[in-house]
Amino acid sequence: MSQATTDVLTIGNAIVDVLSQTDDDFLVREGLVKGSMRLIDQPEAERLYEHMGPTQMISGGCAGNTAAGVASFGGRAAFIGKVADDEPGHFYRHDMKALDIAFPTSDLTTGISTGRSMILITPDTERTMNTFLGACLELTPGDIDAATVEGAAITYLEGYLWDPPKAKQAFVEASRIAHGAGRKVAITLSDSFCVDRFRGEFLDLMRTGKVDIVFANNHEVLSLYETSDFRAAVEALADDVPLAAVTMGAEGSMVVAGADRTMVPAPPVDTIVDKTGAGDLFASGFLFGLARGAPHADCAALGSLAAGEILQHIGARPQHSLKAVAEQQGLRV
Amino acid sequence: MSQATTDVLTIGNAIVDVLSQTDDDFLVREGLVKGSMRLIDQPEAERLYEHMGPTQMISGGCAGNTAAGVASFGGRAAFIGKVADDEPGHFYRHDMKALDIAFPTSDLTTGISTGRSMILITPDTERTMNTFLGACLELTPGDIDAATVEGAAITYLEGYLWDPPKAKQAFVEASRIAHGAGRKVAITLSDSFCVDRFRGEFLDLMRTGKVDIVFANNHEVLSLYETSDFRAAVEALADDVPLAAVTMGAEGSMVVAGADRTMVPAPPVDTIVDKTGAGDLFASGFLFGLARGAPHADCAALGSLAAGEILQHIGARPQHSLKAVAEQQGLRV
Repeated sequence: MSQATTDVLTIGNAIVDVLSQTDDDFLVREGLVKGSMRLIDQPEAERLYEHMGPTQMISGGCAGNTAAGVASFGGRAAFIGKVADDEPGHFYRHDMKALDIAFPTSDLTTGISTGRSMILITPDTERTMNTFLGACLELTPGDIDAATVEGAAITYLEGYLWDPPKAKQAFVEASRIAHGAGRKVAITLSDSFCVDRFRGEFLDLMRTGKVDIVFANNHEVLSLYETSDFRAAVEALADDVPLAAVTMGAEGSMVVAGADRTMVPAPPVDTIVDKTGAGDLFASGFLFGLARGAPHADCAALGSLAAGEILQHIGARPQHSLKAVAEQQGLRV
Repeated sequence: MSQATTDVLTIGNAIVDVLSQTDDDFLVREGLVKGSMRLIDQPEAERLYEHMGPTQMISGGCAGNTAAGVASFGGRAAFIGKVADDEPGHFYRHDMKALDIAFPTSDLTTGISTGRSMILITPDTERTMNTFLGACLELTPGDIDAATVEGAAITYLEGYLWDPPKAKQAFVEASRIAHGAGRKVAITLSDSFCVDRFRGEFLDLMRTGKVDIVFANNHEVLSLYETSDFRAAVEALADDVPLAAVTMGAEGSMVVAGADRTMVPAPPVDTIVDKTGAGDLFASGFLFGLARGAPHADCAALGSLAAGEILQHIGARPQHSLKAVAEQQGLRV
């Protein structure tokens, strides 16, 4: 196995976030489930945008956020995802370049526009996502750049890739190439509704060894095993995958590796403003640490630190150097 | 004089802000003067964007920010400014509509794109603006909707309107209509470089009674009268205009009305994140108070409260209801 040239490659839906602060009444009027992600088509995206309050636009997408986090730690990051040759697409590509994230996926030029997620932030800081996938629907196995996958210590894929039909083939192809090069493959379960849509397929990926590392929050683990018994769910997870990191909100996270269970507390966060991307950023810190050979507990601490940074402002991309924040807190990798 | 149907109409350059956090080295490499606003053309805008870090896009423009502040206080606001029929233009118009701000200006359809300002935020929270005026250059007297001006208790214009050549005619036309309807006209001097470009014309506007109220910070007042003696500058200002509000950073503001000088302290701000728009939001609070007949000291306190809100996050548009913040602090209008 040759030396990795990339710490973490992330593959996911390339999405521009359109964020707006709103109130609970708006969610009720629109019939939205707080904290969830729903998929919408272009007319519904346009209708909803019409009714939303003032917005700000920031590059997003779970896997893109995770790549941004890895880069902010000083890691070598890469991203594969599909944008169109339009203004939001240029905006997305600009941000990847500005962060020095390799982005070897060509633009879609069929006229379908770049994906976007209308994210409604309620006063309780929860986010409710309404995602129009657009160009993301056209990610295919042909977009999986083999050299990038082979050079990445870890390839990380988002569960949301199961939504666009051709992307799941891309996912499996990426896993095959990564394992062929002796690398690790990680997946995030994305959200508990996503788990509900694809439970069988996610379990199959784990049980057939296509993924080595699973990221999930406590709700997603319960959903995966259709149980309300967290301890039992964790035992099942330990049987199904060699390494898992389970986030538990303010309580921190649990690293599950064989018979080991390591609870790592999260440092308290002064003022939570927006929960968008907290899971994505946890993954960035954990994966960066893992790619650099840090012990699991340090990986989880780096994850909590990254999540803590983005909880304190609007948007899922770090506003401060995570490398600097880690050094301030005495966490060196 | 009929009852006003609008509290505050603002007229200015309709600009989408493209914000990015950077370091001092970047400003030095680019030869930029920290804290200033410079005008750039489209090729330079594209070149600079190429070199900037990750960005977020938020509707901006001084007068637009002020209108957003007035609306956030619960005031009836209107805005006149020129955007193109393109994505940033739609984004800008969406935000005005979402804030219930009347926006009676038609889109420009000549192919010139919507104006944008690349705003570089340094770790000391200063902002350095690089503005491509685009469609703003095409604001003409024909865009001044007479009914809107006649119905507004105060029409507020930004000094930056002096940069696009046709806009200054629009400015003078708006002042004529407002005074014809017995309304008040306000101007902000925008920045000390702007004052330097148009000192004679600004003084002429004041001395010929085309404006009744002047907003400026301490640097701009010194620049206006080409002196380093603040007291002397304030005396000259009092001679030239019936009412002025001079902001002085953390010290608060001074209301200058004839022989009266009222110093109004600003409440301390915990964590300043980004100074973009602080002056614009001060004006929003002051103007809202004035339109509702509040005493000058209360107007200045509302201004400081609004500025304090936006200093605490990235971007120049309020993220919390200023009406609610004012009520919390016992400031009722």
